[in-house]
Amino acid sequence: MCIEMAELSEIKTYYEFILPKVLEAGKILLEAKNIKFKLKNNVDWDWVTEYDKKVESVLNKQIMEKYPGHCFIGEESQEDKIQLTDAPTWIIDPIDGTENFTRNLRLSCISVGMTINKIQVFGIAYNPFMDEMFTAIKGQGAYLNGERIFVTQQDDYTQSFFNYEIGMARVGEYFYNLYMFRLKHLIAKVMNIRSLGSSVLGLCYVACGRTDAYQCDGLHVWDAAAGTLIVREAGGYVIDPTGKEFDLLKPNFLATSTKALAEQLVAIEKEADKEMEKVTGNNGEFVP
Amino acid sequence: MCIEMAELSEIKTYYEFILPKVLEAGKILLEAKNIKFKLKNNVDWDWVTEYDKKVESVLNKQIMEKYPGHCFIGEESQEDKIQLTDAPTWIIDPIDGTENFTRNLRLSCISVGMTINKIQVFGIAYNPFMDEMFTAIKGQGAYLNGERIFVTQQDDYTQSFFNYEIGMARVGEYFYNLYMFRLKHLIAKVMNIRSLGSSVLGLCYVACGRTDAYQCDGLHVWDAAAGTLIVREAGGYVIDPTGKEFDLLKPNFLATSTKALAEQLVAIEKEADKEMEKVTGNNGEFVP
Repeated sequence: MCIEMAELSEIKTYYEFILPKVLEAGKILLEAKNIKFKLKNNVDWDWVTEYDKKVESVLNKQIMEKYPGHCFIGEESQEDKIQLTDAPTWIIDPIDGTENFTRNLRLSCISVGMTINKIQVFGIAYNPFMDEMFTAIKGQGAYLNGERIFVTQQDDYTQSFFNYEIGMARVGEYFYNLYMFRLKHLIAKVMNIRSLGSSVLGLCYVACGRTDAYQCDGLHVWDAAAGTLIVREAGGYVIDPTGKEFDLLKPNFLATSTKALAEQLVAIEKEADKEMEKVTGNNGEFVP
Repeated sequence: MCIEMAELSEIKTYYEFILPKVLEAGKILLEAKNIKFKLKNNVDWDWVTEYDKKVESVLNKQIMEKYPGHCFIGEESQEDKIQLTDAPTWIIDPIDGTENFTRNLRLSCISVGMTINKIQVFGIAYNPFMDEMFTAIKGQGAYLNGERIFVTQQDDYTQSFFNYEIGMARVGEYFYNLYMFRLKHLIAKVMNIRSLGSSVLGLCYVACGRTDAYQCDGLHVWDAAAGTLIVREAGGYVIDPTGKEFDLLKPNFLATSTKALAEQLVAIEKEADKEMEKVTGNNGEFVP
């Protein structure tokens, strides 16, 4: 494929092809009983179940049969370093919120995003436990079960309802410090805080106004590909929490209802990061 | 009323009277649209909506008509200092998780508990958004939609899935310190952490094994009356996070799947409280 700008009709063809297949794959999760799960990559915080693998392979198989020239990035099949090409690229997280899934918390979803020419062109996030399908096509708005959704107009951090993925503090010393210093500053200033455990739903909940802001650092392209487009198409704003531009391939994201709210929260976190640097000697740059 | 020990048949009569009325009251929440909410008590973290008042008054009216001699404690109608008597006492939180309700997060419930002779005799918690009815009668086990539920057997804090109500850190300086110091210690040691924003559902989720532990300090009798009985009847353990016995009238609670897990978590929190005392001069006793 060597297109400069993907046509809307082409994007819609791919979107309409995959949408019913995601809905169908949701049934695999609904039928799950006595879920066995295990840790992967020899770390004690990253979970996988047979259902992650099953959903990914069902979707992958159908996509590759129909579109053998396309690229595929999936959480469970990805081995090499990820690089986006200009080809249509399907980016799949078969279960976002795997630990929620193993605990029957109903806060998990299947996430499918696509890039063409490295640009996000559509996003689909389906939570089968609540039968909620969040969708967006670039330039066409965001939807929940077919109804247009919008972010709130919240532009005052003192009134903001903030969803912060503090469980990520478990990932290692750097993240522990990053999350704890930022939380210490944020929790004293925002209206209220939650931590729900699904990054894709975290983004979708900003998109539909259930929260005003969502933040998670230290994620992967499959956690961000669908949800960040859905937020933007709902009128929201996505930025790297350090204030830099959001990078799909190294996704740390602060997603907010307004740009003003993002700027206020970034300013608060800069203070936190400064304190972290003073105390720990680490300036907040990721040290793997 | 002057009974020494309430008979099971008497308890069941009250339970069966109120159960369909709670189910019916759930419809009020499902029908809520464009929810207007406001802060109460001149603080910036305690929310009430017209629906809290509506649900409480609907239940209160039916109870008082049928049982005019009974006592009634409700979140929205309580004015005086709360004292339990030996009389049958209905303890109602019309919407637990009010802020979740205003944000359409589906993590809210109606909670009805009863004490007779100051002993908790039944608990009902209904989340209409997921159609989940948690129930327990003292000595008769706990149920979710009529099916018996049990806590997990988790007795190792390093493997525990912990739900901690960190939004309560907003309540004031004492709670800010208490939650932040404890979180700092807990998050480094438990398997994962969530913060879901409903104390009654937090308790029910321990009862049905969705989490291994739930903790919240600084609550009221209506936050605890139904849920703590449901946890215990599911085989779980409820203790004050300082290690003292749980007190229904001053409810700080750590609810866990096992006693061993509670003891481990209390030991971790004692370290946190010691550090807080060293840093802030406050020994962890509540200073209103």
